[in-house]
Amino acid sequence: MPETKNSPAPVAPSKVPKTERGRRTLRALLNAAAEEFGEKGFHDAAISQITARAGVATGSFYVYFDSKEAIFQALVRDLSGQVKDFVAPRIAAAPDQLAAERAGQLAYLEFVRQHKEIYRIIDESEFVDPAAYREHYTQSATRIAARLQAAAERGEISDGNAEVRAWALMGMNVFLGLRFGVWGDEAPEDVVAEASRLLSEGLARRENEA
Amino acid sequence: MPETKNSPAPVAPSKVPKTERGRRTLRALLNAAAEEFGEKGFHDAAISQITARAGVATGSFYVYFDSKEAIFQALVRDLSGQVKDFVAPRIAAAPDQLAAERAGQLAYLEFVRQHKEIYRIIDESEFVDPAAYREHYTQSATRIAARLQAAAERGEISDGNAEVRAWALMGMNVFLGLRFGVWGDEAPEDVVAEASRLLSEGLARRENEA
Repeated sequence: MPETKNSPAPVAPSKVPKTERGRRTLRALLNAAAEEFGEKGFHDAAISQITARAGVATGSFYVYFDSKEAIFQALVRDLSGQVKDFVAPRIAAAPDQLAAERAGQLAYLEFVRQHKEIYRIIDESEFVDPAAYREHYTQSATRIAARLQAAAERGEISDGNAEVRAWALMGMNVFLGLRFGVWGDEAPEDVVAEASRLLSEGLARRENEA
Repeated sequence: MPETKNSPAPVAPSKVPKTERGRRTLRALLNAAAEEFGEKGFHDAAISQITARAGVATGSFYVYFDSKEAIFQALVRDLSGQVKDFVAPRIAAAPDQLAAERAGQLAYLEFVRQHKEIYRIIDESEFVDPAAYREHYTQSATRIAARLQAAAERGEISDGNAEVRAWALMGMNVFLGLRFGVWGDEAPEDVVAEASRLLSEGLARRENEA
């Protein structure tokens, strides 16, 4: 996994590593945690296995995290940030908002294919750390609503309730990611062709469909 | 909760109650299980608490279920069936498919408001009983895809990949239900007005929006 460059570090400010070596250790721990929690779930995951997967000493773990709960919470934030950092540039590069949402859907589906463990981890946070679960979705919806609102003001999409639209769009993408990213192996482009058409045009027949 | 009338019983055929009294006991156990698992989660829930909430003897539990896992699995199927039985008549009563989807969105949101525990239970099934979790969503998507396909053939909606549309629509409704049914108390009609407009028309501007 690439190092997360844009999002803030998922640890408390006092624990943000100050050296390049520290940043590499923190990244190795978070990547190892994604593997460990993704394979075993929270309950069966072990700090000793996380440090073994990361190839770091146990003491290094406690420089950054107090507990298994603490690294799990940091991991949820880190995965949130990774999704955002992967998808946002693809959205930003699109010529208009409908193209941007299509690019975002495709990028998200590609991300999920490469990080199938993200569903198990985010979904388990509902039980392990409900605040982190809620924060993950609420922050994502807030970002989506802001870009839809701005696009409506620019006249690129119709006017509407941006918050309702954001939760609807996020739900679409999450479930398409589950079905076609985690469970299935259909070509992402075909899935996104249909999903983006639904998002831009809806189900109603066009007038030229006789 | 009303007795589920249309969906098959969520227990094995050999355990389906043959008397009215048996049906009432099974219903009481499932309703009690929804409360117990919804409040405490699977790990902390106890069979003794389920039978106490249901007001039945422990022996009655074992007539229908072998274990806590067994009643949890039955509960996931029962909740799936309850959603379907609540929403389906509202969908069937609508004059066309776009009206039907709108009626279905509103009915689902109303159901969730009355049964907020359903999210915690279905979501936890991903960890307690992954097959039941997958069955719940796959069956729901299959039903949605079938009705969208039939509507496209009748010319009530545009043609398109019904499976992709079904997972997108289901995801929309699940996340709108989480945000506005479980977490929020906005008027369901306002949420559905926007969500159904998104589903029928999409985000694109109409030509008369100058």
